[in-house]
Amino acid sequence: MDAALTHADDRSDQFVGELKDFLRIPSVSTDSAYADDVERAAHWLADHLSEIGMNESTVVATDGHPIVYAEHVTDPDKPTVIVYGHYDVQPPDPLDEWETDPFEPTRRNGSLYARGACDDKGQMFMHVKAAESYLQGEGEPPVNLKYVIEGEEETGSMAVGPFIEEHADRLDADVVLISDTAMFSEDTPSIVYGLRGLAYAEITLQGPNRDLHSGNYGGAVDNPANALGRIIAGLHDENHRITIPGFYDDVIDLTPEERETYADLPFDKEAWMDALDIDDVRTEGDYTTLECLSARPTLDVNGLWGGYTGEGAKTVLPSRAHAKLSMRLVPDQQVADIYDKLEAHLEQEVPDTMSFTMRRLHGGDPVLVDPSIPPMQAAKQAMGEVRGTEPVFVRNGGTIPVVATFQDTLGLDSVLMGFGLDSDAIHSPNEKFGLDRFQQGIQAIIRFHQHYADMNA
Amino acid sequence: MDAALTHADDRSDQFVGELKDFLRIPSVSTDSAYADDVERAAHWLADHLSEIGMNESTVVATDGHPIVYAEHVTDPDKPTVIVYGHYDVQPPDPLDEWETDPFEPTRRNGSLYARGACDDKGQMFMHVKAAESYLQGEGEPPVNLKYVIEGEEETGSMAVGPFIEEHADRLDADVVLISDTAMFSEDTPSIVYGLRGLAYAEITLQGPNRDLHSGNYGGAVDNPANALGRIIAGLHDENHRITIPGFYDDVIDLTPEERETYADLPFDKEAWMDALDIDDVRTEGDYTTLECLSARPTLDVNGLWGGYTGEGAKTVLPSRAHAKLSMRLVPDQQVADIYDKLEAHLEQEVPDTMSFTMRRLHGGDPVLVDPSIPPMQAAKQAMGEVRGTEPVFVRNGGTIPVVATFQDTLGLDSVLMGFGLDSDAIHSPNEKFGLDRFQQGIQAIIRFHQHYADMNA
Repeated sequence: MDAALTHADDRSDQFVGELKDFLRIPSVSTDSAYADDVERAAHWLADHLSEIGMNESTVVATDGHPIVYAEHVTDPDKPTVIVYGHYDVQPPDPLDEWETDPFEPTRRNGSLYARGACDDKGQMFMHVKAAESYLQGEGEPPVNLKYVIEGEEETGSMAVGPFIEEHADRLDADVVLISDTAMFSEDTPSIVYGLRGLAYAEITLQGPNRDLHSGNYGGAVDNPANALGRIIAGLHDENHRITIPGFYDDVIDLTPEERETYADLPFDKEAWMDALDIDDVRTEGDYTTLECLSARPTLDVNGLWGGYTGEGAKTVLPSRAHAKLSMRLVPDQQVADIYDKLEAHLEQEVPDTMSFTMRRLHGGDPVLVDPSIPPMQAAKQAMGEVRGTEPVFVRNGGTIPVVATFQDTLGLDSVLMGFGLDSDAIHSPNEKFGLDRFQQGIQAIIRFHQHYADMNA
Repeated sequence: MDAALTHADDRSDQFVGELKDFLRIPSVSTDSAYADDVERAAHWLADHLSEIGMNESTVVATDGHPIVYAEHVTDPDKPTVIVYGHYDVQPPDPLDEWETDPFEPTRRNGSLYARGACDDKGQMFMHVKAAESYLQGEGEPPVNLKYVIEGEEETGSMAVGPFIEEHADRLDADVVLISDTAMFSEDTPSIVYGLRGLAYAEITLQGPNRDLHSGNYGGAVDNPANALGRIIAGLHDENHRITIPGFYDDVIDLTPEERETYADLPFDKEAWMDALDIDDVRTEGDYTTLECLSARPTLDVNGLWGGYTGEGAKTVLPSRAHAKLSMRLVPDQQVADIYDKLEAHLEQEVPDTMSFTMRRLHGGDPVLVDPSIPPMQAAKQAMGEVRGTEPVFVRNGGTIPVVATFQDTLGLDSVLMGFGLDSDAIHSPNEKFGLDRFQQGIQAIIRFHQHYADMNA
């Protein structure tokens, strides 16, 4: 391990230079105008993984953007680590809010500014450089490595699930390691042990067979937009608990230890609210804000529309009203079961005056990883050594569907050891990544592999 | 009167031919591409009013489309009738659903098909031909006539209110006569004695200062789209009564006689619901469907929008949500007072987690005319004579703001004697006007003037 750490230390400027080359390729996955660049980024990465000495590195075509797969398997007795990451990036808009070109990486105040600097080219590239440090500094890493780097994370990860299923034998491994999350704060390094799931639906209420004149029909024809209001309102009770029957049946409640950990986290609620310009929160029962943000399920309207939405006044009684609404799920809620319960509830709630349809748009199961398992402890040790502060285990309110896929398809836990910060502005103008964290991430990954191998020895 | 009736009878084909010329001018007021045609229609009409023998006829420029003003005042001892109508029409879209060209009037099955055939060129032209019948058949009409024909009725009647105020002296009169409504049914001729008013507002709820990621913020940041649902739901109680404090304070309840009249109207509720493809209505308390459609106030959402409304799933927690909502008012509710009460109520209801704004977009006071006054009785007699059935007095659920303006500005009641039918499909493809009703309308108007003059003699 020491030679690998030294290799990384000695080449820190070179690594940043290579990352800059990688970031110059505008691999915006959602915009077909960039399709060639996405392809180019995949090949750049596969070539680079080959050059550093991985036994195999290849670009795998999919129905969408390609997946880069690389492996370095040398000893069946070593534990095997899958590294997951993505080489695609969000669009750079709005361009005029960038201080420097999003695709001309610029060093400023110890950070590298570029689209993808953190999410996820920068964080994923730490794993490439950690592998290089072992391969060139040490000769061999202490674990077998299998890299699955996709190009569609920002557009729904459509191809990676089928890829994992199709190559389940080849992806035989012991754990998945991912750096695509943020730390709790600069002073509080953290490892994510829980992700929320997602069940995203679109509902339509259909009243009369055409838009009507509100003067001629208002007062007797039930209005789908009014009814949509009643239905949305009825999905929560006064304690902001979700009223769908059975919704909480499978929710694993927070343990007293987890609640203590939440309470100990340094969270400045007033500053957090100030940054959003809100005067108060709306949280479930007695749960704290932080608990509700990551460990409790939610139901949010993501969009709603119906009737006349242009300038001025049009006295229409709309024929239809629509809402997109999604629920964030927590273990052990299951997407399919929650969809069923939502649909059954809505069918009860929709008045006899209209009909109702629901589409299931997008789902992902929630994930919980036991922090006491060896790879989680190895990550805690590694991250603590490089940050000088023992990391905490936290839950994250978001959803990374591929983590549930690794769990469901391969039976593998994922270790989410990320080095981002909220201030890195991922998905926003002036995305950046602190170069100290880039270097620390490489060192922590090197250390993780060794500690994890030691635990398996 | 008899010579006037004979004149109209003898020239029925000629009148239809002239109406066809008028209908060929596509005076679509809302589309600036037709601005020249709207102007042309105004001049055609003013010229025609001059040709038939009106003492004065002129096109009056406004900030929008011109108003045609014509008068024939001969004797200060005669009662004076203002005739109000409009020469503009709705757009013809969707064009491909018309069986014949909307601006090439076509006779079919006893009806004339064209955009504006009924609303309101056809109905308004009955008044022109009634005047001609007196001027050319009789020599003089039994009343003084003042015609106010506007070109913006389909786009909000912005110019006519100021016109009435500015020319209040010149518009000195005893009553207003309008044919721009429908009969209750083919077998049940009717005269409208009540119109609902309108108060139309747009509300915006502002939560966080930007759209947020529903995974990172959902569960604690109150969602404006969810809150909008709660607010809309809270505007009605379980009896479908509106919950705004004081909303019903000034509502004049239906008299037992009015309720009897409603109960006696031949209304096939099942057929009416079938035509709308609805299985049930949602009405206030114990009021009947017909009562709720025209004599009770309402609150309808006319439009709502917020968050992501495109294809697929976007996990946004929206910063803002909006609704357009309007209330139909009944006497003696007043627009300004109801706006104030709505705003005060919403300010109470909006949660502390967000801010709220409301815009007052469009209003009109409700109107109630005493059916026992001479001009209403004159209309009843005239319409009964030509239809062979005594008309009933009914209320209409819609709003014609100019009627309240005539009342408020000039102190004049309006007699709403219309010959349309729901099946005339105004505002829809294949608008038509039964030529029997066109002829009957002319005769009824001729009779109205005589009967009304007799009552004032």
